[in-house]
Amino acid sequence: MTGATARGRGRPSRTESAGTRDRILAAAREEFSERGYEKASVRGIANAAGVDSALVHHYFGTKEQVFQEAVEAVFAPALKAPDVIFEGPAEGVGERFARFLLGIWENPVTRTPLLAVVRSAVTNEMAAAVFRRLVAAQLLRPVAAQLGRSDAELRAELAAAQLVGVTLMRYVIKLEPLASADMEVIIRRVAPVVQEHLTGP
Amino acid sequence: MTGATARGRGRPSRTESAGTRDRILAAAREEFSERGYEKASVRGIANAAGVDSALVHHYFGTKEQVFQEAVEAVFAPALKAPDVIFEGPAEGVGERFARFLLGIWENPVTRTPLLAVVRSAVTNEMAAAVFRRLVAAQLLRPVAAQLGRSDAELRAELAAAQLVGVTLMRYVIKLEPLASADMEVIIRRVAPVVQEHLTGP
Repeated sequence: MTGATARGRGRPSRTESAGTRDRILAAAREEFSERGYEKASVRGIANAAGVDSALVHHYFGTKEQVFQEAVEAVFAPALKAPDVIFEGPAEGVGERFARFLLGIWENPVTRTPLLAVVRSAVTNEMAAAVFRRLVAAQLLRPVAAQLGRSDAELRAELAAAQLVGVTLMRYVIKLEPLASADMEVIIRRVAPVVQEHLTGP
Repeated sequence: MTGATARGRGRPSRTESAGTRDRILAAAREEFSERGYEKASVRGIANAAGVDSALVHHYFGTKEQVFQEAVEAVFAPALKAPDVIFEGPAEGVGERFARFLLGIWENPVTRTPLLAVVRSAVTNEMAAAVFRRLVAAQLLRPVAAQLGRSDAELRAELAAAQLVGVTLMRYVIKLEPLASADMEVIIRRVAPVVQEHLTGP
């Protein structure tokens, strides 16, 4: 799903176009973060990147496709999740999943663009579809595959639901005492739940 | 927090004003549901209710206050939660909480306005503050009070987080297989988790 290879014919040179493409992608992340999916526009992204709108379409296609690639960039850290989660003793799976996902949210650098993606996905069906595809394909399905059970996908989703609910209430709604609670306290509470969902009877 | 009593001086008659007030509130729920907090306007609410904007301000005050009252109406079913949850044997608390909250989301009549509130709260800080106050005051704090432990509020929030995550992934993002899973299957999986958060060691 890198896109550049498929759509990159006719580019001036490999290096120059890679730079332009990255600049557009960075501008897109910024635009989607600040304005959300609905208000963001290809023209706005082009302006911010200092290129013509046609070049944005050339590299990425439609606004939905630019969004998809911007979100993929945001999701890149989550790609490592399945490896991280299953590296180590089986009884630590829950804690490693909790620590990994909350860690992404705890760090402002990874939190800000993720927050923008979540906001877009909650308010716009197109953005929700992109989010759904990515979360399913790149995060939950690989986790489920490692579990190797018939109901593994539902298990992975229920485990993720606990963590998603915590991140939403802690970082988005900022409900107290959860918002100010120590990360380790939260992990101690949710790790057994995540473990139970993933590997329980 | 009914507002009408405090702000209702100078109304033409008790019956007529109650009718007008309810009509404005219904229009506000509609407007916030369709357009979200940010795009909704007092003028739009007034138009939909067939009254002057001044009358909306007279009854409710600012847009934030209209939103708060509209959300309170949406939250009315949740007011019953603490009673419902703690009515019956202690070991059924988790299941009753899960069944109650998922039941509100499963019913399209209660889901639609709730969805609008959640969307507004996720994208707008003012709406988040209203959501935070109501969820904390009317749902989680009464539940925590019944638990009567020092960390009861955090427990109630972590239990709610599991359910909020499930509702978000099932009804908003519509991630499969969770979106199509049988309600009873989900309750069977999350009830022990909610129970553990609320009453576990």
